[in-house]
Amino acid sequence: MPIDAAIVGPTGYTGYHLIDLLLRHPEARPTYLASRREPSIDVRDAFPQLRGRLDDALAMTRPIDAAAIADAADVAFLALPHTASMAVAPALLDAGVRVIDLSADYRLSDRAQFESVYDVPHTDPENLGSAVYGLPELFRDAPGASLEGATLVANPGCYPTAGALAIAPLLSHSLVKAEGIVVNAASGVTGAGRSTKTHLLMSERFGGYMAYGDLGGHRHQPEMAQSLSRVAGHDVAPLFVPHLLPVDVGILETIYLDPVDGDVTDADLKEAYQDAYGDEPFVRLVDAMPDIRHVRGTNFVDLHVGLARFGESSKVV
Amino acid sequence: MPIDAAIVGPTGYTGYHLIDLLLRHPEARPTYLASRREPSIDVRDAFPQLRGRLDDALAMTRPIDAAAIADAADVAFLALPHTASMAVAPALLDAGVRVIDLSADYRLSDRAQFESVYDVPHTDPENLGSAVYGLPELFRDAPGASLEGATLVANPGCYPTAGALAIAPLLSHSLVKAEGIVVNAASGVTGAGRSTKTHLLMSERFGGYMAYGDLGGHRHQPEMAQSLSRVAGHDVAPLFVPHLLPVDVGILETIYLDPVDGDVTDADLKEAYQDAYGDEPFVRLVDAMPDIRHVRGTNFVDLHVGLARFGESSKVV
Amino acid sequence: MPIDAAIVGPTGYTGYHLIDLLLRHPEARPTYLASRREPSIDVRDAFPQLRGRLDDALAMTRPIDAAAIADAADVAFLALPHTASMAVAPALLDAGVRVIDLSADYRLSDRAQFESVYDVPHTDPENLGSAVYGLPELFRDAPGASLEGATLVANPGCYPTAGALAIAPLLSHSLVKAEGIVVNAASGVTGAGRSTKTHLLMSERFGGYMAYGDLGGHRHQPEMAQSLSRVAGHDVAPLFVPHLLPVDVGILETIYLDPVDGDVTDADLKEAYQDAYGDEPFVRLVDAMPDIRHVRGTNFVDLHVGLARFGESSKVV
Amino acid sequence: MPIDAAIVGPTGYTGYHLIDLLLRHPEARPTYLASRREPSIDVRDAFPQLRGRLDDALAMTRPIDAAAIADAADVAFLALPHTASMAVAPALLDAGVRVIDLSADYRLSDRAQFESVYDVPHTDPENLGSAVYGLPELFRDAPGASLEGATLVANPGCYPTAGALAIAPLLSHSLVKAEGIVVNAASGVTGAGRSTKTHLLMSERFGGYMAYGDLGGHRHQPEMAQSLSRVAGHDVAPLFVPHLLPVDVGILETIYLDPVDGDVTDADLKEAYQDAYGDEPFVRLVDAMPDIRHVRGTNFVDLHVGLARFGESSKVV
Repeated sequence: MPIDAAIVGPTGYTGYHLIDLLLRHPEARPTYLASRREPSIDVRDAFPQLRGRLDDALAMTRPIDAAAIADAADVAFLALPHTASMAVAPALLDAGVRVIDLSADYRLSDRAQFESVYDVPHTDPENLGSAVYGLPELFRDAPGASLEGATLVANPGCYPTAGALAIAPLLSHSLVKAEGIVVNAASGVTGAGRSTKTHLLMSERFGGYMAYGDLGGHRHQPEMAQSLSRVAGHDVAPLFVPHLLPVDVGILETIYLDPVDGDVTDADLKEAYQDAYGDEPFVRLVDAMPDIRHVRGTNFVDLHVGLARFGESSKVV
Repeated sequence: MPIDAAIVGPTGYTGYHLIDLLLRHPEARPTYLASRREPSIDVRDAFPQLRGRLDDALAMTRPIDAAAIADAADVAFLALPHTASMAVAPALLDAGVRVIDLSADYRLSDRAQFESVYDVPHTDPENLGSAVYGLPELFRDAPGASLEGATLVANPGCYPTAGALAIAPLLSHSLVKAEGIVVNAASGVTGAGRSTKTHLLMSERFGGYMAYGDLGGHRHQPEMAQSLSRVAGHDVAPLFVPHLLPVDVGILETIYLDPVDGDVTDADLKEAYQDAYGDEPFVRLVDAMPDIRHVRGTNFVDLHVGLARFGESSKVV
Repeated sequence: MPIDAAIVGPTGYTGYHLIDLLLRHPEARPTYLASRREPSIDVRDAFPQLRGRLDDALAMTRPIDAAAIADAADVAFLALPHTASMAVAPALLDAGVRVIDLSADYRLSDRAQFESVYDVPHTDPENLGSAVYGLPELFRDAPGASLEGATLVANPGCYPTAGALAIAPLLSHSLVKAEGIVVNAASGVTGAGRSTKTHLLMSERFGGYMAYGDLGGHRHQPEMAQSLSRVAGHDVAPLFVPHLLPVDVGILETIYLDPVDGDVTDADLKEAYQDAYGDEPFVRLVDAMPDIRHVRGTNFVDLHVGLARFGESSKVV
Repeated sequence: MPIDAAIVGPTGYTGYHLIDLLLRHPEARPTYLASRREPSIDVRDAFPQLRGRLDDALAMTRPIDAAAIADAADVAFLALPHTASMAVAPALLDAGVRVIDLSADYRLSDRAQFESVYDVPHTDPENLGSAVYGLPELFRDAPGASLEGATLVANPGCYPTAGALAIAPLLSHSLVKAEGIVVNAASGVTGAGRSTKTHLLMSERFGGYMAYGDLGGHRHQPEMAQSLSRVAGHDVAPLFVPHLLPVDVGILETIYLDPVDGDVTDADLKEAYQDAYGDEPFVRLVDAMPDIRHVRGTNFVDLHVGLARFGESSKVV
């Protein structure tokens, strides 16, 4: 019996990929597409890729009505912009729907930090306190925050997932210093959503490649820092510099770290990864350099680690 | 002594490429950048490619003031959207400035046709009557419409230039039928300008290729038909189907025509091209298949013609 | 109980995509990867995308041994270069393995035509006679050549599939003339395989778009003609002109046909398509223009048809 | 009177771009295209972009004959693979031709280091000693190695040019530490030349992005280190990690450095750049993030520097 899933916000890229994933999933299926849009739209018009895969009744968006969603679904995915999810989640939780939020609203457990980074008040502090950060490879059975049975899951951001998975085992095995970590990240353009900004036009991005944002000031830095600090048991604050690749999807992070001392070997690094991810189905430890092409359209993360003059680890999400 | 040129509308792709061309031209130079924008902007902010190539005084846009432009320039290029040029050209012409209009406003000599295609009244019918269509390879010395000495030149559209150059010699040498011509055209995205439309986002165009517009109903069809009819001496109306390539610039038109009879040879076709363009500096007659890469950033047009089951000619602009 | 499938030739793009499809298929699975390569290679090295999806035993290529394949598999897919399949198929058929050949070796039922087009003798004329052309939307229950129960299936080529599906209903409903059909086709580069030719380098294709091959002389033309002639009941020979798109995968064919007379309406065209494909799970009849992005990585074919001055149909595979 | 230039090796990307540049240069022109190829080829066949720009006599390659080159040219550019230049340069120098070598053969002044990095003996140690490293922004008037009047110039590599220009002013102004410098570099594919390797195929690179080479072991690292050590007056050895972008041309290096102490300000960094490059025509100091699109097809280098948690500088060549 498949899990019935509602998707709140099905007309953005996140919503589309969720629908696509659920349609191919053997144990889940989309049953309700909820949108604030008036009038209702056919998501197959927004994403012609979905023609022939959704029946007419399902394809039309319906209101974000907690009771109706509770009737139709066991779980609701919130594929909403940041700050919009926290306005929707409480009613769903009250109606008994489990919620998986893909926005940033419940990722930072420190309310003050959230409010500082996103520059808005957090309107749902109660649920923020009980939200579980959904990065199973690192926090599957975290004490008091187990994913199993969680009613509100904060899905990690794209950049922080890559960075946390790559760095965490090296910290937890005490192989690298917590200071001076540099995360040079590069992402395809869908990470910026479907908004029509001049710099995201094909005519501006074709053949282009650039860093963006304030140096070190990207919103995803605090989230990556939160995961790493949790793993290390003390504050870890990597420098994070994102770049825009001239492709649609894919993230590669090339990460530079200092080994704790001269005795750290290449084998130590690989062993730490093996230890952490040897049994994980979606993390692949690779000898060759990861290429974003190799993970396209999958939920694999490819990790490569090696010792240059520095320790080094690169990672693809 | 170089020709001083004003550019009206320097913040779109057409304006940028004009500035770039004029800066590299041995006999012309930009001297005035005119824009409706308030406040004035620095075009180097709109196009960082121009940093280090424009001095501070020139880089700031100035008002579209006919007298000031007449003081600063011999000729004004109008790089404006369709229907905006005809509001600006009369004053410039009155002030003694020669005008080269890159919009569609003066391309169709038949006022009624213009008004039907663009769905607006033509507000400058007087100058429309005397505008010279600027396709020198076909109409350099057209009787009563010589480019030399013209005060108002209507620069041809991108698609019609390619189509007219490829087809005209075959018609004028009576090698192909005027009926049943098919122009399968493909263009890079900058042809659509710098406007922020969802379907022009990198995330929507990456890896994409599609036909667009109403079948056979593109605005450039009447202009292509006008040139060909002028060459043939009777009405010629090709079917024109444009496609969007996942690149920034470049146009390839693959054109299908019927030979007048079974006696037409490959050599006849090539001879017609040689005859028409043998002395033209910017038209290259090529044996291999043209590739849009080969003309990128140049003003070359590569023409290839051959006899398949049909006559065929493809062309790159 | 899933169908066990062998793949002969797993190190090219066709082989890779087959493995990927079979791994995601609910009713089939790869059980034997056969290659002529000595020594055996790990296909996960050739295609790192497959890491974590194939176990060690399966990933290593094994010899092309008919008896061993018969032990391990119900069916063998031949993902071999043209002319290599016919050297392998007979032994597999003799060993009781059903064969689905993805090369061109069994596509053209006329042996003389095959030998003329591919310029080699056909070494397996016996099986050529009984091979079934695997285009179910058109020939699922062809008399004497039903796909159900066929032991040797010739899988159609990429271009001919698109062309045949788009054109066949219009011919069978007597809506268009059989003469003068033009197929303007554009394909991504993987269609050319993984061979290292200069013109297929990223550095040569980036930003490029060109027609290729002899005008009208592409090897896929006879195959498309064969399907259409079969449907029409008389010879149909479209002009076929392929182009190379600067993308990895995707085919769009823009097809130009003449309606039989002036009475043919847009509704007639759409009705013919609806009639032919209304119940087909993998053919989508679309109102908007098809984009190769929309079918990427799927087995959908999007068909759009409309009346311009000509009848017209474009198609994506 | 223009400078007459021979190009030795005109059929690779470097040779093509040289020809293109010289054809557009107001004070130089290509007069002799020398190649080892037998028989002679027409470079317009290798690079159709050059059709219509080279006359027939010049376009055909001629032998690498020092006397003939000396007759035809004042200067010879060697656009040859590494280790091939040192076999050709001595005869040209003896014949009185000034030589600008674009290979790596004369870049590393330490013969032993060259032999270790390229794993071949240096066959022209005599001229190696007198070669001048051609990076005018840093070493225009280097004592004993002035570019003016030099007879053998070693043109810098692509990656080292970017890295050296970005880092040198920060070292020479004592703003950053010489230890722990990280150069995260990304390049288009033409940097790898026109050789037909599987991983350089469009079908493999489309949508891809990856690091390559041994971590920290790229051949360009010693050259970058040589320049920086020369500027600093002591050994500087950055960690250099190159990546392959899915574009044809362009390099961006994102560089991470540690400020010497907590007093270094953003203004100090910018002032160092202004000091070093304020009068340089081809170095642009930019406030916005550099994009490789903005320098495409030019010889501009865009430099941006800022203080994150670390000092940081990124650079485009």
